[in-house]
Amino acid sequence: MIMKQFVLDHRLEADSFPLTRLGLCELRLLNDKRWPWLILVPQRPDLVELTDMTPLDQTLLTFEAGLVTTALKNHTGCLKINTGALGNVVRQLHFHVVARNEGDAGWPGPVWGHGTREPYEPQEAQDLIEKLLKAL
Amino acid sequence: MIMKQFVLDHRLEADSFPLTRLGLCELRLLNDKRWPWLILVPQRPDLVELTDMTPLDQTLLTFEAGLVTTALKNHTGCLKINTGALGNVVRQLHFHVVARNEGDAGWPGPVWGHGTREPYEPQEAQDLIEKLLKAL
Repeated sequence: MIMKQFVLDHRLEADSFPLTRLGLCELRLLNDKRWPWLILVPQRPDLVELTDMTPLDQTLLTFEAGLVTTALKNHTGCLKINTGALGNVVRQLHFHVVARNEGDAGWPGPVWGHGTREPYEPQEAQDLIEKLLKAL
Repeated sequence: MIMKQFVLDHRLEADSFPLTRLGLCELRLLNDKRWPWLILVPQRPDLVELTDMTPLDQTLLTFEAGLVTTALKNHTGCLKINTGALGNVVRQLHFHVVARNEGDAGWPGPVWGHGTREPYEPQEAQDLIEKLLKAL
């Protein structure tokens, strides 16, 4: 029997930068400088809903999302964290952790589907990634 | 010392119907018939972010959100579940579990902040609540 392997969805790969691998998740920075926006992708094949994971993996994701939330909140000093798993466009299970502030793009509405993405300059992304890794 | 008590935010109370109390959360149906939309509110005082909860409560919420997801998915036969905790408008921690289908209002965008709420007829809400309680 051949074990199925986790392969990152090509749209997630194209739209974000890799930060690190946590125990369960690949952690990525969305390439949109309007908001500091991290994505956790559980490295298991064929996941769509959170409930497709085992209870242990669900708990691991909760724990890792908490770590990421605390690091993002500490680094950015943001007013509010927005989290979510939608998957209406990209089905591969991925969990969003986004730093929000009053007056940011779309505030107080959601970030998903809002306006047009604004990519980082390469150096800008690199700097933020390094700072976020330190905060983790 | 007087223990602080959990009090449901008055906007959450006004915008949704009570279904039941789970171990940690009060489970409510949002009064918007565009989407079957449930809200879990952890019954602890002064919570804003998911990470304000103890690790055990975070795990309980994950478990209860999973139960609710499975029941909502089974009852509605929806294509996708959308989950999230935003809190940009109402700060009291609440976790959304929403049934989505291709072509529903705002698809494939998020439900939050989309258009104008469409309240249920009283009997319609009562019927849905009874069916969801059975599915739980």
